[in-house]
Amino acid sequence: MSVYLHDIPLDKAQAALRSALQVADLWRVLGAENIPLAENALGRVLAEPIWAKISSPHYHASAMDGFAVRANETAGASLTAPLTLEIGKQAEYVDTGDPLPEGFNAVIMIEETEALDADGEITSAIREPQTIRIRAAVTPWKHVRPLGEDIVATQLVLPAGHILRPVDLGAIAASGHVEIAVSRKPRVAILPTGTELVEIGSELKRGDILEYNSLVLAAQIKNWGGEATRFPITIDDFDLITARVSEAAREHDLILLNAGSSAGAEDFSAGVVEKLGTLLVHGVAVRPGHPVILGMVKRELEIGATTPDSRPPTPIIGMPGYPVSAALTGEIFVEPMIARWLGRTPIELETVKAELTRKTTSSGGDDDYIRMAVGRVGERMLAAPLNRGAGVISSLVRADGLAIMPRGTQGAESGEAVEIHLYRSLAELERTIFCIGSHDMTLDLLAQYLAERGRRLVSANVGSLGGLVALKRGEAHLAGSHLLDPETGEYNTAYIQKYLPDTPVEQVMLVNREQGLLVQRKNPKNIKDLADLTRADVAFVNRQRGAGTRVLLDYHLNLLGIASAQILRYNQEEFTHLGVAAAIASGRADCGLGIAAAAQALDLDFLPLYQERYELIIPKIYYDDPLLVPLIEVLHDQDFQIAVEAMPGYNTNLMGQLSRRN
Amino acid sequence: MSVYLHDIPLDKAQAALRSALQVADLWRVLGAENIPLAENALGRVLAEPIWAKISSPHYHASAMDGFAVRANETAGASLTAPLTLEIGKQAEYVDTGDPLPEGFNAVIMIEETEALDADGEITSAIREPQTIRIRAAVTPWKHVRPLGEDIVATQLVLPAGHILRPVDLGAIAASGHVEIAVSRKPRVAILPTGTELVEIGSELKRGDILEYNSLVLAAQIKNWGGEATRFPITIDDFDLITARVSEAAREHDLILLNAGSSAGAEDFSAGVVEKLGTLLVHGVAVRPGHPVILGMVKRELEIGATTPDSRPPTPIIGMPGYPVSAALTGEIFVEPMIARWLGRTPIELETVKAELTRKTTSSGGDDDYIRMAVGRVGERMLAAPLNRGAGVISSLVRADGLAIMPRGTQGAESGEAVEIHLYRSLAELERTIFCIGSHDMTLDLLAQYLAERGRRLVSANVGSLGGLVALKRGEAHLAGSHLLDPETGEYNTAYIQKYLPDTPVEQVMLVNREQGLLVQRKNPKNIKDLADLTRADVAFVNRQRGAGTRVLLDYHLNLLGIASAQILRYNQEEFTHLGVAAAIASGRADCGLGIAAAAQALDLDFLPLYQERYELIIPKIYYDDPLLVPLIEVLHDQDFQIAVEAMPGYNTNLMGQLSRRN
Repeated sequence: MSVYLHDIPLDKAQAALRSALQVADLWRVLGAENIPLAENALGRVLAEPIWAKISSPHYHASAMDGFAVRANETAGASLTAPLTLEIGKQAEYVDTGDPLPEGFNAVIMIEETEALDADGEITSAIREPQTIRIRAAVTPWKHVRPLGEDIVATQLVLPAGHILRPVDLGAIAASGHVEIAVSRKPRVAILPTGTELVEIGSELKRGDILEYNSLVLAAQIKNWGGEATRFPITIDDFDLITARVSEAAREHDLILLNAGSSAGAEDFSAGVVEKLGTLLVHGVAVRPGHPVILGMVKRELEIGATTPDSRPPTPIIGMPGYPVSAALTGEIFVEPMIARWLGRTPIELETVKAELTRKTTSSGGDDDYIRMAVGRVGERMLAAPLNRGAGVISSLVRADGLAIMPRGTQGAESGEAVEIHLYRSLAELERTIFCIGSHDMTLDLLAQYLAERGRRLVSANVGSLGGLVALKRGEAHLAGSHLLDPETGEYNTAYIQKYLPDTPVEQVMLVNREQGLLVQRKNPKNIKDLADLTRADVAFVNRQRGAGTRVLLDYHLNLLGIASAQILRYNQEEFTHLGVAAAIASGRADCGLGIAAAAQALDLDFLPLYQERYELIIPKIYYDDPLLVPLIEVLHDQDFQIAVEAMPGYNTNLMGQLSRRN
Repeated sequence: MSVYLHDIPLDKAQAALRSALQVADLWRVLGAENIPLAENALGRVLAEPIWAKISSPHYHASAMDGFAVRANETAGASLTAPLTLEIGKQAEYVDTGDPLPEGFNAVIMIEETEALDADGEITSAIREPQTIRIRAAVTPWKHVRPLGEDIVATQLVLPAGHILRPVDLGAIAASGHVEIAVSRKPRVAILPTGTELVEIGSELKRGDILEYNSLVLAAQIKNWGGEATRFPITIDDFDLITARVSEAAREHDLILLNAGSSAGAEDFSAGVVEKLGTLLVHGVAVRPGHPVILGMVKRELEIGATTPDSRPPTPIIGMPGYPVSAALTGEIFVEPMIARWLGRTPIELETVKAELTRKTTSSGGDDDYIRMAVGRVGERMLAAPLNRGAGVISSLVRADGLAIMPRGTQGAESGEAVEIHLYRSLAELERTIFCIGSHDMTLDLLAQYLAERGRRLVSANVGSLGGLVALKRGEAHLAGSHLLDPETGEYNTAYIQKYLPDTPVEQVMLVNREQGLLVQRKNPKNIKDLADLTRADVAFVNRQRGAGTRVLLDYHLNLLGIASAQILRYNQEEFTHLGVAAAIASGRADCGLGIAAAAQALDLDFLPLYQERYELIIPKIYYDDPLLVPLIEVLHDQDFQIAVEAMPGYNTNLMGQLSRRN
């Protein structure tokens, strides 16, 4: 079926939009408004330069508490040959900021004077002495802030386009302004459309989609200096959407129509734009993003208006429906427009070079924006690609930055240095602890407790063995691991010896935890133990190869003499306990091996089978690093232990203990 | 007189404050409030972690527009052996986001299907075909977003202490939340005190000081996540200030008392704090800053209250009066408190290593915060110390960052690498053009026009010769210069040959401008020309050695046979034309040589004497650099030329022309 979009390259799409805005005379600052400096000026963009109206100080001011003098009358004063000056004639008391009295040209600090009483004796009654004694001469203009020292009338204080910071308000006030001209905020209408959309807070049924893109887009607009109006949800109906767009076009500078921008059965956006104006672009070769629409719609007359509206058309962007695509489309297309309309420089993210932790492919036909977790492990700055699904907003929350693979490139190899556009400051990245390995729900709690101690815990779940490999490759500060050695019944040690023979590590006890079978609520298939996995009516969901839970399963299957081929869907793999639980909760499987907390999380039943030891494997160089000190502290924090024990199936008796030094 | 403050080291002062807050149980998150996600959640700090209430997606969703199928029923389909699936039985049309119909487990993209009509022919009526043909098998769960793909119920979505960004709002909504608990904003009272203070916008008389510290402090508080209340100005009266502090203590979390924190005759802050509570610290060894007061004041009862107030005391900070000191005291003492009260990490400025452009001394007894202009010239990142006066707020506006010279160090040498804590992003610094040399008012206009083109022009005024030296030392991209060669009557070339023999440069014409004598309005001393400078009643104000104007003066004095010793205050030096004008406007001098625009700026009279050539000297490596392209463009921008000609005494006929290639 011929429903492809005709994707055009990103730079061409941006140029088309810019050119349409130029034709409509909309590629400029939209307008200015005068606001009082004292109200909400912070963060606004100057529409006009600030030229100083007055000088600061606007008179010669004493820079110190002390006595104003004439410099020539202090000549010759020294430690051994002090001079006496008469108050009122030769010296006048001045506070800091006081104007220099007429005829005086220097100030002597009060600390460098001696107040004398009528008899010429030193007195501590400093308030109104008759004479003072000085023991050093001063040069003209000493301790005087001359007129204009800070700002001279007519000089440029701040250029137009500047975003106002706190100190700017001071300098603007000092230069004699009370009101300032700032760019007016662009007004952006956000129109969520879709029959399947429901407001947040609604009772959900299958197929309902929570409408939150408008929240994200509105917050982006606000962050960038615009003013967003969120319209109510419009169902998928051509006429209703047309009416909404028409209405929004009247009083807004930009319309974001979300979604319906693709080419599916219910995608009306392109048709609506064509009906109301000009469709410039339908489909952009950017990933995620693709079904982006750019257009201009005519401003409809107000109902009852008698004269035609001479204003230019209103730009409209059809935003893709997937939340990651919508947010990135905002960054790529909307932010630069807002910047232009405000007269400020577009936002430039800081960049850092980082080594890819794994090969990352790109389609070649698209500009590919890849979310990355970024951080330093030892001397290396690393970038680990995150989930690339356009529907996975949590990946954007977790993202420390973006790698942009331009069109015509096929991606980059593991270990290759790529440029990352950072969402976080480098300082924040330097506070990041990378934990790669087995998943345990305790790690979420640990992340929370570390956040309170100024550390960011970033976990990637690749299974216990994957964690040890990551440590070997120098890609993590620690790994969570619960690998049972079938020979000895011990945990982790044998695997560490095998995979990390040359790396001194600490095995730090995190928890003893229960593993067991997760089954659907009320256990409808009456599953009792591993023997039931061979039943033809029982579909299993497994953990991936190298996961400690998989090792545990295989160990016990072996003891029971059960072959993996006897188990239905033995090869259906998930990467976390919660993934296993979700598979069962959704009916995709009947049971899986996992931890009690995951069962409780998704309201499943749990059949306890084994106790196991879950440890944090920490290379010694990191165990002693200041970065990890708060982590070790948390393990000994009673509040944390109590919080862990509150989850089912956890025992924290040995938490934080070192089980072996090598 | 014994009016020294007893300064204590900064770290001790911070520790004293923290300890007092701990005793009062105020070293914690002050409180939480529930707010709707959809309103003003952006930028707030999470008071509690967000644990997912629901999974996202909360059902198995189609990831594409297409047909839901059973994977096993597609087995064997290939390009040459297509399979036909019956709609309703074996396939169901689904839009992106639709739930997978019961019993189906994969989706085939619509683009990969052929719709067939009743006769088995391909049809373009894609809306409701009876059968579809497929030419490839699919694996189970292909193009399906399984339940929990993004977020699994109970997982940690965001930790407490996190500052909410746009995408966070999406993830929080996706995880089933409508309201969130955020830290309540700390309430900060800002109390300006001082009999000399006047509100901005007031008619000014000598000695009046514009009160704008409260604007800066309030904006800082807002930026950091607090809520500021600016109180009216209180005059220097112990009882009035005491009453104000008492009042503010009732309902605020922190009081900033500004100023009166020193030890002068009118400094009541310390006394007020002692009367109302505990004075912890008076004087901190930090520069600028010094007269900082830290204390705790009791919460007074509301008038008419019948039960005693059991709430803890209110912390109070006596802020120094100088604007730079006040703003830095905010950064040093207030920001970390607000951070703690909100539960977020204190702000950490990014740092960069930069080479000092000149020796920078530090008192040794203080932690010294030195404002720096920072930028890259060629391969080197440079830091140039700015005016260190605590009253010069424009230095804080211009500052790109701070160098902190800790107690016990004496400063750093020119060329030494120092760590700079940056106020601006590195990206912004990379857009910075350094112009060091002679001052001309055109440079302010140029800065404005460059700002509109995404460049930041930073000028330092050290005179023409100083500019050439800066170029030689590789510390600037260009220098403004108007150095007359007495031998040839030519400008700049001879000096360039002498000072920059090995550096190929372009001499780019900026303006021809008039130099003349600036005299007081209506020329009360009836000065006519340079010959009058020898009069005993005429005090001169000169430009510094190496300034083109000074060279011009000396050249003409020489022609006239006047010796510098014959001129009263020949050695009184200023660094800019506006500085010269300000000296005359304030009565500090009777006349000086300078440009017409400076006279006009400060409403002085101007006696034109000479025409001179003001050029931009640009090393060729920078002339061709993309960084400077917008600058060259501006020189050919007619709007810019018109704006320059609007200033008196400027001729732009040759602007932008290269006067000589070497």
